[in-house]
Amino acid sequence: MKREALLSSVRDMLTDHRFRHTLGVVETAIKLATRFGADREKAELAAILHDCAKYWSEDEMRDIIRKEPELPDDLLDYDKELWHAPVGSVIIQRQFAVTDPDIIAAVRYHTTGRVGMTLLEKIVCLADYIEPNRKFPGVDDIRALAEHDLNLALAMALGGTIRFLIENRKRVYPLTLLTYNDLLASREERR
Amino acid sequence: MKREALLSSVRDMLTDHRFRHTLGVVETAIKLATRFGADREKAELAAILHDCAKYWSEDEMRDIIRKEPELPDDLLDYDKELWHAPVGSVIIQRQFAVTDPDIIAAVRYHTTGRVGMTLLEKIVCLADYIEPNRKFPGVDDIRALAEHDLNLALAMALGGTIRFLIENRKRVYPLTLLTYNDLLASREERR
Repeated sequence: MKREALLSSVRDMLTDHRFRHTLGVVETAIKLATRFGADREKAELAAILHDCAKYWSEDEMRDIIRKEPELPDDLLDYDKELWHAPVGSVIIQRQFAVTDPDIIAAVRYHTTGRVGMTLLEKIVCLADYIEPNRKFPGVDDIRALAEHDLNLALAMALGGTIRFLIENRKRVYPLTLLTYNDLLASREERR
Repeated sequence: MKREALLSSVRDMLTDHRFRHTLGVVETAIKLATRFGADREKAELAAILHDCAKYWSEDEMRDIIRKEPELPDDLLDYDKELWHAPVGSVIIQRQFAVTDPDIIAAVRYHTTGRVGMTLLEKIVCLADYIEPNRKFPGVDDIRALAEHDLNLALAMALGGTIRFLIENRKRVYPLTLLTYNDLLASREERR
């Protein structure tokens, strides 16, 4: 499917607000891909598709997580905000015939992260945090880090989510902490 | 070994500042044990002993963690602040002939926590955070929670450590997050 057709399909799956967010993620992902030397076309496609499952019903998402052997059931014990990313990685294969494993993984891990993220996965995940419509406290610090240090910027973005959840007395999906640790460790190793 | 003899031995292993902290943990652990129905004598003994390895050298601690099959080597990849608790649980068996598994576990897990903490483990871990000499931001909120909700108080104490580490761009020992999640989940189950 071509870029314009994909955008049009995704627009139909989202609210206007969420579609503006998606366009922001597309713009930011392309910038980050250029800055850090990733495949711009893959970054753009993954960004267009990343939130396509955002408005699927809770029941539909739970059903897909249960039935797809690749998706870990433990997601169901945590916040529903985590579900649309792995579910989206299934939808894009079924509905848009995406077969590129890089794009599938970038959609799948854009919320939780994972240990050993690829460059493309990091870019889509970070773009989701810092696209121009995002306004949470500390976002400008992360944008500044993203000018030169992708791993630290993403570690601080995920770390901010963990802190927010703790401040609100919510449980934290363990993979997000493992990803945070992994991103910091990869910086230490390079020194 | 009797209480007074143990206190005297531990005093010799600590700085004056750290011994005052230990006395604060003893006082608080006894109060919490009374409040939540734990064994007061065990709480007192574990509190007296909890920091006995605090001033062992890094090399001695590393050596014990490597040689003791019960202690996980992954501790060595994280902050040295985590080492004295598991090392202390070995020292108290060797030096003070402690054999009570409840006390050994309460010393071992007093910094990281663990999934499925016993009542005694929770009490010693929380007493370590809120004893009267502690002055970190938010400690009074945790003291207030400790009046009636042991699990939430300890979750917020461990959560505060996790937040502090993230604010300082440090890695977080995963077991501490798993413990935090477990304490919140145990509250949800009771509702």
